[in-house]
Amino acid sequence: MMQEFQIKKTVRDLDSQIQHKIDFKTKPLGALGQLETIAKQICRIQETLSPKLNKPVFVVFAGDHGITAEGVSPFPQEVTYQMVYNFLSGGAAINVFARQNHIQLKIVDCGVNHTFEPSSELIDLKIGYGTQNFKFEPAMSLADCEKAIWNGAKLVETIHLSGTNIIGFGEMGIGNTTSAAALFCKYTQISVNDAVGMGTGLTTEGVAHKMEVIQQAILNHNLTHSPLDVLATFGGYEIATMVGAMLKAAELKMVILLDGFIATSALLAAHAINSDVLDYCIASHLSNENGHRKMLQILGLKPIISLDMRLGEGTGAAIAYPLIESAVRFMNEMSSFENAGVSTSVDVATLA
Amino acid sequence: MMQEFQIKKTVRDLDSQIQHKIDFKTKPLGALGQLETIAKQICRIQETLSPKLNKPVFVVFAGDHGITAEGVSPFPQEVTYQMVYNFLSGGAAINVFARQNHIQLKIVDCGVNHTFEPSSELIDLKIGYGTQNFKFEPAMSLADCEKAIWNGAKLVETIHLSGTNIIGFGEMGIGNTTSAAALFCKYTQISVNDAVGMGTGLTTEGVAHKMEVIQQAILNHNLTHSPLDVLATFGGYEIATMVGAMLKAAELKMVILLDGFIATSALLAAHAINSDVLDYCIASHLSNENGHRKMLQILGLKPIISLDMRLGEGTGAAIAYPLIESAVRFMNEMSSFENAGVSTSVDVATLA
Repeated sequence: MMQEFQIKKTVRDLDSQIQHKIDFKTKPLGALGQLETIAKQICRIQETLSPKLNKPVFVVFAGDHGITAEGVSPFPQEVTYQMVYNFLSGGAAINVFARQNHIQLKIVDCGVNHTFEPSSELIDLKIGYGTQNFKFEPAMSLADCEKAIWNGAKLVETIHLSGTNIIGFGEMGIGNTTSAAALFCKYTQISVNDAVGMGTGLTTEGVAHKMEVIQQAILNHNLTHSPLDVLATFGGYEIATMVGAMLKAAELKMVILLDGFIATSALLAAHAINSDVLDYCIASHLSNENGHRKMLQILGLKPIISLDMRLGEGTGAAIAYPLIESAVRFMNEMSSFENAGVSTSVDVATLA
Repeated sequence: MMQEFQIKKTVRDLDSQIQHKIDFKTKPLGALGQLETIAKQICRIQETLSPKLNKPVFVVFAGDHGITAEGVSPFPQEVTYQMVYNFLSGGAAINVFARQNHIQLKIVDCGVNHTFEPSSELIDLKIGYGTQNFKFEPAMSLADCEKAIWNGAKLVETIHLSGTNIIGFGEMGIGNTTSAAALFCKYTQISVNDAVGMGTGLTTEGVAHKMEVIQQAILNHNLTHSPLDVLATFGGYEIATMVGAMLKAAELKMVILLDGFIATSALLAAHAINSDVLDYCIASHLSNENGHRKMLQILGLKPIISLDMRLGEGTGAAIAYPLIESAVRFMNEMSSFENAGVSTSVDVATLA
């Protein structure tokens, strides 16, 4: 039986006070653009005019994918576990950016095809040694999918208990853009052609092949419709774990920072289960992966940065983090016209 | 006699080594997108494979504009000096973002229409108490324009001596989007309609009036053609000081971070004087001010962020700063495939 998540939609009760505080900062009306939108959203989530970002944590969810047998990635599957070691030793891009921005990083084995020696640095939520090849059979059983969701929820509960109120979602899994594209097709009305991209660097022929694989897989599992069925059939262990983590984070009123294509595909699944999760989500960056733009549009999310990145791991979210901090800081630290003794413009004066 | 700036174009000698280092980091080829471009540019400027950002300094250049007599801003001119006090007491947006990102801030009076009490916090490079109204007469004399350029150059020399190798350009001056738009028209082939925007918040009628003022001013000074003449006629004290500061920063091989519309108009002037200055410039953000996009396109610069901001002060550059730091850090801190024991993809393997 699927766990229920009690997500409360954010309320608009404080909106006029939030807007007033923003408008009387020493700046032209609206001059901080999207930073003002982000500040408003975090104020709503935290139900305050003085938002705070406490102990930011980013989680990298790792898992392997049976679909790699179809030749959908230019990298061999071993790269998933090799990159997990790279995360643990601090040498990957996400380590660099997390260190820079004082973000605590947690690495989770959700289902990597490798036996890791026990380590205090690696969180073991392993469901299996990689999913099945979803071209022919469901990636995982419904029971395993629910277990992964539960794992993600429990993990976030623990993180929240330590005082964290903002969490970033990254992932690692060779083949997982194929899984994410299939989920994208099933959760929305998007065509396979619009959903599929080059992943870690496929050629045009490689992309065409990936499309065929997904098209065939969708035909082979034509009867899957419920959100959970779709996730179990086409998802990955790391994606399903992210789904539970996102839903629990929203239930706990944490700010959720999405990364790119795969993290957003997890949100599509979470959204299909409980659409109120969206109120807690910030789209950190627009990935260069074809389809991510449409995915965000469908969800009604506007990315903060767009730097042609397509690395995953949470890297887009990690480098966007300081901009979210800027949004929170101007709310708390900037003077008002009155405090600073600065004359207002005509338009601000009419608001007073 | 105009000071000469000895700017050396950046060389491409290290390009293949820089690209090799980037391509063998543990990530798909090109997956860090624009961060890779920024890293390359800074490597070229510093002629190294291990770039460093030392003691970042942002300067806010303040000055008043006679053109405000024409009613081109919804804010009264006094706001310029009031905001200078706000900068000095740490309450403006640029203070907040500079504190956040460990950027040292310097506030410069280039020609504010106010007598400030002497203060160690305010750098006095005052040329006059606001420029003349350039609808009817040149904003400043050629001699004052050269003096402002020299002031900017000397200031940057001092900043460089203290070990700074990256400098951000912000400004404050009620009316200065009008000055910047006029410079834009004169330094490029852009029409007044395409160059003018809402500034700090003009209505549609206000924008139309601003266009008429600029159109008339350009007709009234039809014979100004040399870069310096144009700057003296339509510029501002803070803009001319920025021009000298940018040219000297390029001469000293510092990384130059542009802010928005006004800082970029200063670059147009600097570029007209010595086009090699461009090699040292990074466009931090795309301002919401109409015309900024075209200005950057003409200069061939691609902004890092685009958040609908239009505040000036250096705020766009200050919040983009961590992204530039991310670019430098990945070059220095990320593991290579070989170091991390990670398998390469087929395409990286062919480069080895």
